Amino acid sequence: MAKTAITPTRQDDYPEWFQQVIRAADLAENSDVRGCMVIKPWGYAVWENMQRTLDGMFKATGHENAYFPLFIPLSFLQKEADHVEGFAKECAVVTHHRLVPDASGKLIPDPASQLEEPLIVRPTSETIIGATYAKWVQSHRDLPILINQWANVVRWEMRTRLFLRTTEFLWQEGHTAHATAEEAQEETMRMLGVYADFCENWIGMPVIQGAKTAGERFPGAVSTYTIEAMMQDRKALQAGTSHFLGQNFSKAQEIKFQDQNGQQQYAWTTSWGVTTRLVGALVMTHSDDDGLILPPRLAPKHIVLLPIYRSDDEKSQVLPYVEGLKKELEAQDYSDGKVRVMIDDRDIRGGEKNWHHVKRGVPLRAEIGPKDIAKNGVFLARRDTGEKVGVERSQLVATIGQRLTEIQDNLFQRALKMREDNTRTIDKLDDFLAYFTPKNADNPEIHAGFAMCHFAEGPELDEFLKKHKVTIRCIPIGGAGEGGTCFLTGKPSARRAVFAKAY
Amino acid sequence: MAKTAITPTRQDDYPEWFQQVIRAADLAENSDVRGCMVIKPWGYAVWENMQRTLDGMFKATGHENAYFPLFIPLSFLQKEADHVEGFAKECAVVTHHRLVPDASGKLIPDPASQLEEPLIVRPTSETIIGATYAKWVQSHRDLPILINQWANVVRWEMRTRLFLRTTEFLWQEGHTAHATAEEAQEETMRMLGVYADFCENWIGMPVIQGAKTAGERFPGAVSTYTIEAMMQDRKALQAGTSHFLGQNFSKAQEIKFQDQNGQQQYAWTTSWGVTTRLVGALVMTHSDDDGLILPPRLAPKHIVLLPIYRSDDEKSQVLPYVEGLKKELEAQDYSDGKVRVMIDDRDIRGGEKNWHHVKRGVPLRAEIGPKDIAKNGVFLARRDTGEKVGVERSQLVATIGQRLTEIQDNLFQRALKMREDNTRTIDKLDDFLAYFTPKNADNPEIHAGFAMCHFAEGPELDEFLKKHKVTIRCIPIGGAGEGGTCFLTGKPSARRAVFAKAY
Repeated sequence: MAKTAITPTRQDDYPEWFQQVIRAADLAENSDVRGCMVIKPWGYAVWENMQRTLDGMFKATGHENAYFPLFIPLSFLQKEADHVEGFAKECAVVTHHRLVPDASGKLIPDPASQLEEPLIVRPTSETIIGATYAKWVQSHRDLPILINQWANVVRWEMRTRLFLRTTEFLWQEGHTAHATAEEAQEETMRMLGVYADFCENWIGMPVIQGAKTAGERFPGAVSTYTIEAMMQDRKALQAGTSHFLGQNFSKAQEIKFQDQNGQQQYAWTTSWGVTTRLVGALVMTHSDDDGLILPPRLAPKHIVLLPIYRSDDEKSQVLPYVEGLKKELEAQDYSDGKVRVMIDDRDIRGGEKNWHHVKRGVPLRAEIGPKDIAKNGVFLARRDTGEKVGVERSQLVATIGQRLTEIQDNLFQRALKMREDNTRTIDKLDDFLAYFTPKNADNPEIHAGFAMCHFAEGPELDEFLKKHKVTIRCIPIGGAGEGGTCFLTGKPSARRAVFAKAY
Repeated sequence: MAKTAITPTRQDDYPEWFQQVIRAADLAENSDVRGCMVIKPWGYAVWENMQRTLDGMFKATGHENAYFPLFIPLSFLQKEADHVEGFAKECAVVTHHRLVPDASGKLIPDPASQLEEPLIVRPTSETIIGATYAKWVQSHRDLPILINQWANVVRWEMRTRLFLRTTEFLWQEGHTAHATAEEAQEETMRMLGVYADFCENWIGMPVIQGAKTAGERFPGAVSTYTIEAMMQDRKALQAGTSHFLGQNFSKAQEIKFQDQNGQQQYAWTTSWGVTTRLVGALVMTHSDDDGLILPPRLAPKHIVLLPIYRSDDEKSQVLPYVEGLKKELEAQDYSDGKVRVMIDDRDIRGGEKNWHHVKRGVPLRAEIGPKDIAKNGVFLARRDTGEKVGVERSQLVATIGQRLTEIQDNLFQRALKMREDNTRTIDKLDDFLAYFTPKNADNPEIHAGFAMCHFAEGPELDEFLKKHKVTIRCIPIGGAGEGGTCFLTGKPSARRAVFAKAY
């Protein structure tokens, strides 16, 4: 049996493998606060790269950043009936603003400091931002408003999992207001496209863009669009959503404007967001049984240089060589900037050091000892394929950008093939049931993948799906919409949807 | 009387002038949540520039970013006695995690969801971060830990003022742990120096670096260092602090390590932070009675191009010219990047448009109409001096970086002169009293400035200062420490401190 750096393997226990990859890569850990995580420097650096890229994409599509309060007055939540139904259930409620010692000296909330109206820690900001937009918008000249916010939000989750579902998480939420439904609809689709672009070209994770069915919509939205990705256990992960809110929130929050004919109109609004869940998606898409594999465009470091020496003499020869190579590599262009290089000169065993960077997913590792220097080369290992080759120094410098591009492409193609190999068109109930039954009783997590099926929404389908723990991920956008009949009820169906087990 | 864009003027009512400058520049506004502000896009863009610059400085000094939970268990606060005394008094307390409708349908906190232990919304993160470091540190090899966090924090303030004191604010908090007191002390001073560098060379705001006296220290710190700046009403504003925490927090949180001799030791920790208050400091340092003046290095836009035309014919001539000029200017280097250019082609009156950008503080404005184009030039206005000159197009492109540098320098020199003109060495009680008595009864806000005095800490001085609403800002670092006697008590004194009225 091959020894792997991560125990268990994906095949043996996928959920536990995921936790162990995160741990071995130093991405994050559970904190002392229930359901809240600590994002460690290596994990946060990945998130920073995601942020920087997305932020540039938002600005390129005309958006500006702003910041709105963390707290939402309880009464605001109640203004949009569906919204409160979806969000008010589990949230952090601030009821007091002072602590005092009790008789024993233990701190307790001061009863005298109870708030007249409790405050909710934002689970999402449609209501507080809508109330602000209502003040900003008077005329059609004030529209559109195209604003994004980078923030933390809190949803009181019962079962949490690092990155995928945590009580507090980091995200961005775009909130826009428009004069017409068409403009708002266009914006909704534009931002869905930005998310898909980012996921495919930066995370290297293929996604299916589609519309959610009625039951899966954002609370208060007219329509919700999503990007769905397949993880290595063949489950679907919702990686981002973009909502066309119609006039639901503008009516609840009184976002009104005078149009060109002097008539009062309600604005049309959208919202869209992605979260630190994307880090989890990245991990589950690319990593293997030796740990994290980072797509180069988002990797905090592209290459780690590992100096090897056994004496002070060798050290004084190897270190300057490695420093010089670092400078040369750092001068090379890659993606939207320069090549990011680190040297690991810690005084630990070479094997341990090498595995450290394997587990952390650094795309390239270069070992450099006196023998390599004699040949003016390095011993180069590629994380995604495991390939190891001797490379001449000037060759490495000249090809570093190209090598990283190859890795990025390989990761995307590998993930795409995984999805294609595990997606089937299914028309019959028996096939559907067989498809979603795990083949291996030892590992019920891994099943057959995505099924493209005709369907008819309704209680019968809902109940069936709930029973079998399968969900409708989305109705894909584009492609021919040939008609058919629902695999379960036989009712007529206009299009196929993606069915899958999901996170 | 000269008409100004901002009413009242600085001279007439400085605090109200400050609010009006913020309003006229679209920097921020009060939200519907008590004490919390909405940071609008123009204000947030200034903060983003501050963040990006500081973040680069932190990384250049070896720090990494991470993220820790928003919530702190109540019991954590109680571990460090001084700390809880300073922070537990006014804070947001989360007591429930669910809302339910009451009999009338109104949402209330669900009594069944009461938390066993209340959670505090972080007022600062020493305790939760310390608890995490305790898990990360075992050996001296795990030290130093050099981490920064960009986050929101909440302190329940009774009287709030936009940017200067708000219930929720944005900040960064650095938290480091070291093996020796010397290293921790060095780190404390290094980061104070980074803050001073940033304030002087980016905000263009001169600061005095110094130590806080015992009464003004951060709760739980061994020593607190500060940078203090003079605002235009001659009051002091604390612009950033860096704390040497000794072993106080490591003892409270059990951050222990095995040293090279195998002995268990407590780590030495520091913390340091600056906040969105810096945006308020920027506003109060540079702005005038026509509104905001932005130091170019932090300005979201360096120059606004204002096309002028009266017909479609003129428009079709002017707009392409302006677009071309924008591209040329954007190709020029300035500070750490390129020149940031905007075109304002809104269909509003020219005067209104011009004042819009005056009030928003854009460093340079260029009007471009058919007559200017005929001369292949622009009519250029400088925000800091009000100077207006005709400039040949290629000249403008060639000198744009230099012009911005001149403005940046002028703003710093002007603020430095303001501080020097309003700082005096004072040795006698009568002089001290006269100095801090406003000269103009109509405007009690504006008084004489900073006083450099010998002093002896103690209840007598404390009481005196409290009565006269004067505070000791800091004991400046460096400079000769000639001895003397306290201006109030006559007791011996080793050094002078900065005395001032303060925000």
